[in-house]
Amino acid sequence: MVQYQPALDRTFGALADPTRRGILEQLGHGTATITELAEPFQMSLTGLKKHVRILEDVELVTTEKVGRARRCNLGPRRLEDAQQWIETYRQMLEARLDRFGELLERTKGEQR
Amino acid sequence: MVQYQPALDRTFGALADPTRRGILEQLGHGTATITELAEPFQMSLTGLKKHVRILEDVELVTTEKVGRARRCNLGPRRLEDAQQWIETYRQMLEARLDRFGELLERTKGEQR
Repeated sequence: MVQYQPALDRTFGALADPTRRGILEQLGHGTATITELAEPFQMSLTGLKKHVRILEDVELVTTEKVGRARRCNLGPRRLEDAQQWIETYRQMLEARLDRFGELLERTKGEQR
Repeated sequence: MVQYQPALDRTFGALADPTRRGILEQLGHGTATITELAEPFQMSLTGLKKHVRILEDVELVTTEKVGRARRCNLGPRRLEDAQQWIETYRQMLEARLDRFGELLERTKGEQR
């Protein structure tokens, strides 16, 4: 159905953590430094940096050094691939359920 | 923006593996036993069972014992939550890009 997309492993992996989803949601309101991002999570800067690096690797976040701080922003990835995979899956599931429904109807018909 | 949804950690985690996405795609064509599922992946039954269990935990797959085999099928989860999260994220990203575009236009206007 869908060919193997290695990028999807890393994308879904990046989204599988509440801190990382939280970082993306926070950056949706505007750029923020690592220190600002760490605050609501009550997390060490080192811990938060690791999460930011994972998001940088999949281009969901970009960072730049501004003086002594590192400023983070949303990256260029728009998650089309992840969205497309889920959409295709849902269509496939619907088709399965439809076929199953038809089968049930036919079985009922035969029993009459 | 979005409240913390623990189920999303496990859902995205389950989708972050090519074998598990492959299993779902294969089950989209119809039910299959563990042995049938293992074939295209050239994987041990033990290895494949672990993946199936992870998919069962998030209700993407159901299994039932039929004689000596275990028959797998697509589960009741329709991935609405994952799809919704990604959709909300994309809308937020678009809004950010729009605001950035407006800012650029305004800056240009001021420079004229």
